[in-house]
Amino acid sequence: MLVLHHAWRSSASRRVRLCLEEKGLAYESHVVNLEALEQHSPEYLKINPNGVIPALIHDGKPLYESGTICEYLDEVFPEPPLSPDNAYDRASMRNWVRHVDALIGNLVIFNWRHSLQKVAEKWTDEELAEHLKKIPSKERQEAWLRVARRPYTEEERAVARGKLVHLLDRMERTLNETAWLAGARYTIADIAVVPFVKRIDEEIAPEQVAAQFHPRVSKWWADIQARPAFARANIGPFLDKWGQAQT
Amino acid sequence: MLVLHHAWRSSASRRVRLCLEEKGLAYESHVVNLEALEQHSPEYLKINPNGVIPALIHDGKPLYESGTICEYLDEVFPEPPLSPDNAYDRASMRNWVRHVDALIGNLVIFNWRHSLQKVAEKWTDEELAEHLKKIPSKERQEAWLRVARRPYTEEERAVARGKLVHLLDRMERTLNETAWLAGARYTIADIAVVPFVKRIDEEIAPEQVAAQFHPRVSKWWADIQARPAFARANIGPFLDKWGQAQT
Repeated sequence: MLVLHHAWRSSASRRVRLCLEEKGLAYESHVVNLEALEQHSPEYLKINPNGVIPALIHDGKPLYESGTICEYLDEVFPEPPLSPDNAYDRASMRNWVRHVDALIGNLVIFNWRHSLQKVAEKWTDEELAEHLKKIPSKERQEAWLRVARRPYTEEERAVARGKLVHLLDRMERTLNETAWLAGARYTIADIAVVPFVKRIDEEIAPEQVAAQFHPRVSKWWADIQARPAFARANIGPFLDKWGQAQT
Repeated sequence: MLVLHHAWRSSASRRVRLCLEEKGLAYESHVVNLEALEQHSPEYLKINPNGVIPALIHDGKPLYESGTICEYLDEVFPEPPLSPDNAYDRASMRNWVRHVDALIGNLVIFNWRHSLQKVAEKWTDEELAEHLKKIPSKERQEAWLRVARRPYTEEERAVARGKLVHLLDRMERTLNETAWLAGARYTIADIAVVPFVKRIDEEIAPEQVAAQFHPRVSKWWADIQARPAFARANIGPFLDKWGQAQT
């Protein structure tokens, strides 16, 4: 029995849905209401002390952190495999996940303005202070403070865009050498990057995903989108109402 | 053939040395001169594009990120095992590593003032700008800028200390339930935390590691220090000259 606590547009949630769909695993979906800060509620913190989505409950036991959840699923449900067969490529896979995780702040700058910013900017100073107190992570506290009071500037978005395009450069170099990011097989490394490339392609720097600038990434992205699991994971457009199915 | 690029007092390096010593693996030691910014040199960036230590070369192939290196070593050299036997505990282990990794900025606030700050504060603005350009990670750029021009304040150190003590609280809760952080076996989760507890015990909040405040952590720490691998990994006192053996 698998229960997924997630949101349709959350990048980390999209990873776990992709992983579940690649494995052909059925799950009960529980959409967390981010606007109501359900992820910081005492009930949710019992599932994930970090106060972020997604969390996966497997036979009553909670799992969190998308990279960790995907590796867990691959170990417990080994078919089809989503990790390389050899240790060196598995190390590469894990470093891709770590590298992309470290870039999430750049994606937040583009994503939250369409969603959480519209909620946070209406808070009074008291409400803001109250909400910030409940947020376990310092990075997330800062992000909430920014969207509530000092929205990210065009210049900051340009810097963030540059870092995300640099991710495409790094992917391009790797895909010049191997079919997928961590070797010959589609793995959790590819899954980790999908929500990033989706947003870059959709809004942040669409021209950079095209064959002219990153031909290998362009081909990789077409292959990813053609996978049946991609459609089933419901990684739809971002620019509609937060928390609803997007299509 | 294993070659470790590391520094004696670097937290991530200490993890990998501990892992190597627990496995009884011999390695060639190459100490990276952090004061001379060798970790940002083009040669080193070919080994680790993230420009941080440690890096491990195994049979000519480079590995980086301490958490990834430790898992790799455990897969390639399985005895004695440093991961739990079951998938759920392995997920816990990986989340401990991720959680501790996310706290490294708090340790940097205490560590760099004894070392890199003394170098960076002497740079001219031109030198500083030149150095910052070479640093791949935004967090590390910020940390260098801070020690060079706006050293962390006593108030910031107090906040960082609070977060590190909170790590001890979290450890205490876990160690109330299991012998080690990720279950019944000493694993990479314990190894990941060692460099943090060492610094908390040595300087940051020594009283908090004592039995009065965190009895389970206190016992865990005594057990860790009694392991032969701990001595062999040379995790010595911090407050001597940077980059030299510390004992």
